[in-house]
Amino acid sequence: MTEAVSNIHLAALHFPVYNKVGEIVVSSITTLDVHDISRICRTYGLGSLYFVTPLKSQHKLVEDIMRHWRDGRGAQYNPTRKEALKHTCVKNLLPEVIQDIETRFGEAPKCVVTDAKKFDQGVGYGEMRQIMKSGGQYLLLFGTGWGLEKSIVETADYILDPIEGADGFNHLPVRGAVAIILDRLLGNFSG
Amino acid sequence: MTEAVSNIHLAALHFPVYNKVGEIVVSSITTLDVHDISRICRTYGLGSLYFVTPLKSQHKLVEDIMRHWRDGRGAQYNPTRKEALKHTCVKNLLPEVIQDIETRFGEAPKCVVTDAKKFDQGVGYGEMRQIMKSGGQYLLLFGTGWGLEKSIVETADYILDPIEGADGFNHLPVRGAVAIILDRLLGNFSG
Repeated sequence: MTEAVSNIHLAALHFPVYNKVGEIVVSSITTLDVHDISRICRTYGLGSLYFVTPLKSQHKLVEDIMRHWRDGRGAQYNPTRKEALKHTCVKNLLPEVIQDIETRFGEAPKCVVTDAKKFDQGVGYGEMRQIMKSGGQYLLLFGTGWGLEKSIVETADYILDPIEGADGFNHLPVRGAVAIILDRLLGNFSG
Repeated sequence: MTEAVSNIHLAALHFPVYNKVGEIVVSSITTLDVHDISRICRTYGLGSLYFVTPLKSQHKLVEDIMRHWRDGRGAQYNPTRKEALKHTCVKNLLPEVIQDIETRFGEAPKCVVTDAKKFDQGVGYGEMRQIMKSGGQYLLLFGTGWGLEKSIVETADYILDPIEGADGFNHLPVRGAVAIILDRLLGNFSG
């Protein structure tokens, strides 16, 4: 059994991220991401999941989905979706997320980013697992689109080593990357 | 770097699976699943990915997606999607998949299923990793909807232990389960 880790939080950033040609943009939230990433975070018992976008129309989208599955007809139809969405919310910008964690838990989180590139100061999964067990709040940051704007990566407290695919292929969907990284950091299995 | 494992194959079964009330049904293929599961399988260098459904309209859906991204305008727009879809195809039924692997590789694969329940004869991830390294062809079976029809589970060569979530929550999306299980069986990382 995996233990709940309410000191570990995750933010799925839809701004600031790059588009295909390297411009900084707001990417779109897909409704499936709200469910998938919520279900994955709930599986590993995370404290909170933040969708981050400054677009008010996208806030409404996420809030409409959550209202349907948490309080509306969806809550009766599929109670496990209600359970999965319990710790999900939406914020405008990363600093608001950090502030929210500080307000709720009494300390600002250490930011942990993931990137498709390997950095000299990169941290391995075993090492990060140990660091997170030593206490404190941690916020895992995932970029959508073509990746997190570089100043967020460069100013993070920890940069995780990339997930290296066969023959250098590194184009995982964000949903897949979240699942793999949470399992490496928090999964409980033999071998 | 993860090594390509062309003796490992995956089938995403949309029939026979259960619906919410325990009836055996054909579930729908979502277009996002075609991309996500293809990208995840390509990350781990799998030999092939089969989408399994007897519905001709769903075959056409998968083939239309693949034509666009492999040969059509999508191939120029995003070459990594073309690469990810290279080993993806669609078949009517599980026995056709097994036959296809036997024809292409000279031997029938051992079937490895995953299930949300734990079985007495369940195999752990470390053990399965060793078994797969000993040679031969392996076919990982994933059910959609509310899970694989039980005779497929009961007649498989190996049943993997379930992914155990915090407080017994076990409602991962199939895309997440594929990512986690391939990483446990084939991922290459320290710690």
